[in-house]
Amino acid sequence: MAEPSFSLRTPDDDDIPRRICDRCGFVAYENPKIVVGSVVRHERRILLCRRAIEPRRGFWTIPAGYLELGETPEEGARREAREEAEADLVIERLLAVYAVPRISQVQLIYRATLGRPHFAAGPESLDVKLFTRDKIPFDEIAFPSVHWALAHDEAAAAGAPPVPFGNPAGQSGDVMPAQGRRPAGGGG
Amino acid sequence: MAEPSFSLRTPDDDDIPRRICDRCGFVAYENPKIVVGSVVRHERRILLCRRAIEPRRGFWTIPAGYLELGETPEEGARREAREEAEADLVIERLLAVYAVPRISQVQLIYRATLGRPHFAAGPESLDVKLFTRDKIPFDEIAFPSVHWALAHDEAAAAGAPPVPFGNPAGQSGDVMPAQGRRPAGGGG
Repeated sequence: MAEPSFSLRTPDDDDIPRRICDRCGFVAYENPKIVVGSVVRHERRILLCRRAIEPRRGFWTIPAGYLELGETPEEGARREAREEAEADLVIERLLAVYAVPRISQVQLIYRATLGRPHFAAGPESLDVKLFTRDKIPFDEIAFPSVHWALAHDEAAAAGAPPVPFGNPAGQSGDVMPAQGRRPAGGGG
Repeated sequence: MAEPSFSLRTPDDDDIPRRICDRCGFVAYENPKIVVGSVVRHERRILLCRRAIEPRRGFWTIPAGYLELGETPEEGARREAREEAEADLVIERLLAVYAVPRISQVQLIYRATLGRPHFAAGPESLDVKLFTRDKIPFDEIAFPSVHWALAHDEAAAAGAPPVPFGNPAGQSGDVMPAQGRRPAGGGG
C-alpha cells in the first residue's frame, strides 16, 4: 500500500489551506482539539500522575487527555482519570477553560474528588501519588496549564467565586510561568 | 486521481476503530469539534441571524461556528460574528458550556455586546436582526442549544451568578425543548 502524501492546498469551496492527499484527494480537515482533565482532591491532598509517555515523560500532571467522539467533557475527564490513575472520580464543577492556540487546544478542567479511595498507575503513568499542596513538585510539572489549574484549584479551595478561570493574563500556554513556582494563588 | 476509500479499522497502536484509507493507509483521526458562539446584546435587544445554509436554512440562530486552528475561543466567536453578521463584538464573559455528544460537539457560548452599532447579513445569513426578548421567534429557532443560550442569557441578565451554565438537566441537544417555547428563565 502506498504511503499518504499530503500537500497544503485550498479546496475550491473553502478559504483556508488544508492538507490534501496527492494520491486520492482526501481533505484532512483539522480542527482544534479538546483536552479534558481534573484537579482531583482526596483528604485534602491532590492527585498527580507522573507521565510514562512523551512529551514530558517523567514530569507530573493532572489526569487529562483528548476528548473522544460521543463523549461529554465530564465523561471524558472521568475516563482519563480511570485510564491514567485507575481513579473513579466524582466531578464537582468546571474549574477552568484554557486556550493554548499555538497547539490549537482548548482545555476544560474540572474540580473532582475520588469516589473511592483507590488509585494506581495506568499504562501512561509511571506513578500516581497524592500530594499535600506544600509538597507538590512544582519544579517537575509537565505543562504550563497544569500550573494554572493547580493555582486556580487552590483559589477555589480558598473560596474564590465559582466562575471558571481562564488563561492567566498575557499567557497562552507556550512557556512555564515566569515568576517562579506558583503562578497565582500564593501560599507556599 | 483516485477517490478516497475509507474503511473502519483499529490501528495497531490504538484501541478505537478509526477511518483508514484503503489506498494509502492514512488514518483519519476524528475528534469532537468545538463550536464557539455569542449571545449578542445591543440596546437591550438580542442579535439573531437567519441561516442561509443547511442545516436549518431559514431558521434563526446566534452567531456561532467551528473554532479554527490557532484561534482562542474568544477570537473564534468574534470571527463568526464578523462573518455571519458583520458584527464587531465586545466579549463580556463565558455564558455556557454545552455538550452535544451525539454529534460530538462542545459549545462555548459567550455573552457579548456590539462594539459599534453596525450589523448586516454575511454570506451564510439571509437576514440579521435585533429582537427584544418578547419578540424573539422561538418557534423558528435553529437548534436546541440556541434555546438554551437565550434562556441562560436571560437568566444572566436577571442577575444569576456568573457561573457558566451547562446543558439543561437530562438534555443532550438532540431535541428541541419539550415544555414549550422557553426552556428556562420564564418570562414571556
